[in-house]
Amino acid sequence: MRKLLLISNSTIHGGGYLEHCAEQIKQFLSKSNVKQVLFVPYALHDRDNYALTAKTAFEKMGFELESIHTQPSPVEAVHKAEAVFIGGGNTFRLLKTLYDENIVSEIRKRVLEDGMPYIGSSAGTNVGTISISTTNDMPIVYPPTFKAIGLVPFNINPHYLDPDPNSKHMGETRETRIKQFHEAEDTPPVLGLREGSMLHVEDDRVTLLGPLHARIFQRGQEPVEYPPDSDLSFLLRH
Amino acid sequence: MRKLLLISNSTIHGGGYLEHCAEQIKQFLSKSNVKQVLFVPYALHDRDNYALTAKTAFEKMGFELESIHTQPSPVEAVHKAEAVFIGGGNTFRLLKTLYDENIVSEIRKRVLEDGMPYIGSSAGTNVGTISISTTNDMPIVYPPTFKAIGLVPFNINPHYLDPDPNSKHMGETRETRIKQFHEAEDTPPVLGLREGSMLHVEDDRVTLLGPLHARIFQRGQEPVEYPPDSDLSFLLRH
Repeated sequence: MRKLLLISNSTIHGGGYLEHCAEQIKQFLSKSNVKQVLFVPYALHDRDNYALTAKTAFEKMGFELESIHTQPSPVEAVHKAEAVFIGGGNTFRLLKTLYDENIVSEIRKRVLEDGMPYIGSSAGTNVGTISISTTNDMPIVYPPTFKAIGLVPFNINPHYLDPDPNSKHMGETRETRIKQFHEAEDTPPVLGLREGSMLHVEDDRVTLLGPLHARIFQRGQEPVEYPPDSDLSFLLRH
Repeated sequence: MRKLLLISNSTIHGGGYLEHCAEQIKQFLSKSNVKQVLFVPYALHDRDNYALTAKTAFEKMGFELESIHTQPSPVEAVHKAEAVFIGGGNTFRLLKTLYDENIVSEIRKRVLEDGMPYIGSSAGTNVGTISISTTNDMPIVYPPTFKAIGLVPFNINPHYLDPDPNSKHMGETRETRIKQFHEAEDTPPVLGLREGSMLHVEDDRVTLLGPLHARIFQRGQEPVEYPPDSDLSFLLRH
């Protein structure tokens, strides 16, 4: 009874916060009759300000929003939430705080056993997957593990970026970095989600949303491009 | 009696491996009468091939090179090395392997107590500093800590990249990421080393080498640009 909306990024160039995915969020939450969303602002330093931004965006879509950082007990807040939205920022800070607050297993339980809708954006998408090993962020703090909430058995690289043929920069491309991840045995598939893309998961059905192709990397195979609206359910059978 | 050459990156656009820093490496090693260099290839998966690339480059500069992965005891190899060169690749894999092989403290001891020359490039530069918290790499494996060899009391961001004013990509800029690092208390200065730049450290004197400016970030302050050949010794007094 898994219900996930995993968004690559919260803002696209020239747009407002969550504007490009507002329709998908509305549909996703309305289908489960959600009225109020629990927001997790841990990926950014200024939680009050972040919660205000998120509240404004969700109210515009017709939902109430309450931030977990203002609640007396984060575990209890997850326990009684109708739906959760984990926002982007620094993935290491986010994952560390989820463990510090003891809510990793509670979120997993609520999503996988109770069917609580989960929305993630950027870092919030990373922590919804099997691990944060394909984040783009700097390791500014040390989490107790890179294992994440594990709502899906694969990894996502949000903000996926194609190599720039005119670049003179010699740092590794995103594809090279993901290939390095796959040099180790038993590494899961990685979904490269370009900015503007989303992944909708309902039970065992996975669909690519948004206007762009996504790129799937599997260990020992050439990457494959999938067009918008592709059924990517095979990723769950890894 | 610290002797370090910390290189931003091993290859610049259009050049060969270590070509842009060959003169600085030659000078640096010759000054200590080094004949043979111990190479650490742990940041890349294919160690044999990496060692061959490094061996070719160092032989061209007039030095022998032996790779630590072909030695029966890595600790013993560090113990008797004349100089060490740690190459680039994935910083997480590199740091984890340095700990797995038990050579972090041996390298620190040899460099800080015996004055053994240390050359690092990219990931090899990251692990020479206080922590890997300002690497650009993906966390493909989980090291036992982000603390690194600690030959200097500050962080480096190699391959430092200025924001592209024409980019429509919404992922954080390098500067934003470093500022997020500095949101935590007691975080050390971060030196943004652009591609082609190097840092030379001799005892308590730190000098910026290469044709470009470097950018220094300190918690709570605006970043400052330093021109080539700047004396950056103040970074050691953090």
